[in-house]
Amino acid sequence: MTVSDSAVKIGELSLIRHIRSEFSSALLKDVAIGIGDDAAVLRVGGREGLLISADTMCEGIHFDMTFATAYQVGFKLVSVNVSDIYAMGGTPNWFLLTAAFAPDTSEKFAKEFLSGVKDALDLYGAGLVGGDITSSKSGIVVTGIVMGFAEKPITRSGARVGDKIYVTGALGDSACGLELLRHIMAPVELDKDNGPDRPMPWPAMRPLIHRHLMPIVLKPSLGASAASAMMDISDGLALDLRRLCAESGVGAVIYENKLPMSSHMLAASELLDKDPLHFSLCGGEDYEYLFTSAEDIDTARYIGDITDTGLVMIDKNNDAKDLADCGYVHFI
Amino acid sequence: MTVSDSAVKIGELSLIRHIRSEFSSALLKDVAIGIGDDAAVLRVGGREGLLISADTMCEGIHFDMTFATAYQVGFKLVSVNVSDIYAMGGTPNWFLLTAAFAPDTSEKFAKEFLSGVKDALDLYGAGLVGGDITSSKSGIVVTGIVMGFAEKPITRSGARVGDKIYVTGALGDSACGLELLRHIMAPVELDKDNGPDRPMPWPAMRPLIHRHLMPIVLKPSLGASAASAMMDISDGLALDLRRLCAESGVGAVIYENKLPMSSHMLAASELLDKDPLHFSLCGGEDYEYLFTSAEDIDTARYIGDITDTGLVMIDKNNDAKDLADCGYVHFI
Repeated sequence: MTVSDSAVKIGELSLIRHIRSEFSSALLKDVAIGIGDDAAVLRVGGREGLLISADTMCEGIHFDMTFATAYQVGFKLVSVNVSDIYAMGGTPNWFLLTAAFAPDTSEKFAKEFLSGVKDALDLYGAGLVGGDITSSKSGIVVTGIVMGFAEKPITRSGARVGDKIYVTGALGDSACGLELLRHIMAPVELDKDNGPDRPMPWPAMRPLIHRHLMPIVLKPSLGASAASAMMDISDGLALDLRRLCAESGVGAVIYENKLPMSSHMLAASELLDKDPLHFSLCGGEDYEYLFTSAEDIDTARYIGDITDTGLVMIDKNNDAKDLADCGYVHFI
Repeated sequence: MTVSDSAVKIGELSLIRHIRSEFSSALLKDVAIGIGDDAAVLRVGGREGLLISADTMCEGIHFDMTFATAYQVGFKLVSVNVSDIYAMGGTPNWFLLTAAFAPDTSEKFAKEFLSGVKDALDLYGAGLVGGDITSSKSGIVVTGIVMGFAEKPITRSGARVGDKIYVTGALGDSACGLELLRHIMAPVELDKDNGPDRPMPWPAMRPLIHRHLMPIVLKPSLGASAASAMMDISDGLALDLRRLCAESGVGAVIYENKLPMSSHMLAASELLDKDPLHFSLCGGEDYEYLFTSAEDIDTARYIGDITDTGLVMIDKNNDAKDLADCGYVHFI
């Protein structure tokens, strides 16, 4: 999933920089937080805290119908959007859906996709209020738009020198699950034992594959003002930590031996002859949360500290090195 | 632009019916108007009137890079979204943008597209607050999300028997402009005289082509409670009137000789050997407004009356016939 810089034809990051400089205008009425965080924070009726975010998933880029089902794509679209609301310390309330289906998309496919959307919305307690169904020239492109509320939104920009860095769960499971799917090259039924003709026993693969195909995101359990900065980990810890530090104007040091990795992911990496550290740092779509706090937090994993400047990882040999410049860049 | 029913592989309308029945759940908190109108109407802080709508445009379906420029596509995306807010009697305030660019999209293209978005937002007085930039497998797919406010939202469902039916401007210009572009088969510079090697003189074609490539939408000038029902005309008068009547549970009669058609459109239709009535009834993307009112309205064109049931057009010979079952169906 890592995209080397040389392959990046138009840098997503450079375009976003362009947008932030071009669009920062006097027209931004009642905007507490605009472009550049997990969600925008808007003021309505004098009250801050209306959140909105939009995320697009494209066939062949964000999902592959070789191994995903329509239901899973619908479910995942909602999860990745809700993740942005949770990452602001908010609660989702409303959802809009736009879907451009391909000319050969069947009605059965469309209805299964919608069923995944519905089950996920029911799970997260949000309701569908609108959208647009249309046709694409080729390939399926779906966009979720989620709105919610946060009493006290948590941004990416509040990290301060001396804060501790935390993540809410294991890293690399989703990227490792995707790698397993590339060996299987067929849709899997997540609720069935998928038989013995697999690279490893199904119960050991299932959590990884489930995490990739149909992530269920959890609201981070934090005290109201525990986190000084927060974001979801959607493009890999290394890239997302880089973003959080850039927004906060700080640096970071993290410790390789403190990065949480699941036993399933470690076993699968060995079998696949892949580096689990690469999955953890550079693999996208973890949909866990990265946050900073001046406090000691029991409910998350401490992985490092906010510093003045620089992005450093202390490896297993206690050597300091630059944090890998990797991560999932969407716009290649 | 008309899609015959036989060509409709999955009916957009049937899918939307499916969505409306499947997704009407107890989870719809603080939703005054949900799926099925130009925009959803939400309650925030006990106050009704937050509007949100999303519209997607796909390359090869909604726009054709054979004759559109990136700037025009960006501008149009904002206009068609703002049209949904104006159609509710609202004012736009915030905008989100998602764009899936193709692998061969250049940075120049992306920046020109963004420039069109920005100029349109400046024109309508809305600010960009977020979105998502990503990559598609092939073809460009862009989605606009617009939020606004209406003190007293005007829905599609308020038309009552005896109300008069109005439209705010000429019909068929955009569809006729598209037909002209299909003869030109190249991008045109809207602000230049495009020379003599054209199917008709540029000053006569320009308003039609401009209307198609880069529509500028106007807020309907209506008294606060003059309209009983309203919607924008995006898929052709015949289909959109059908939708308004269905939502209101009424019928309609319209008069062919009252349909407003521009002199440019009439001249171009003659040259193209096309029926101007077909452009007016069945052509999409007029982005004028269709509304009903119990009052006499000077600022719009009276075209018919709301009846109990049925959809009838009185033609030029004073014969009553069923209103054409035509219009632009997006999901083919």
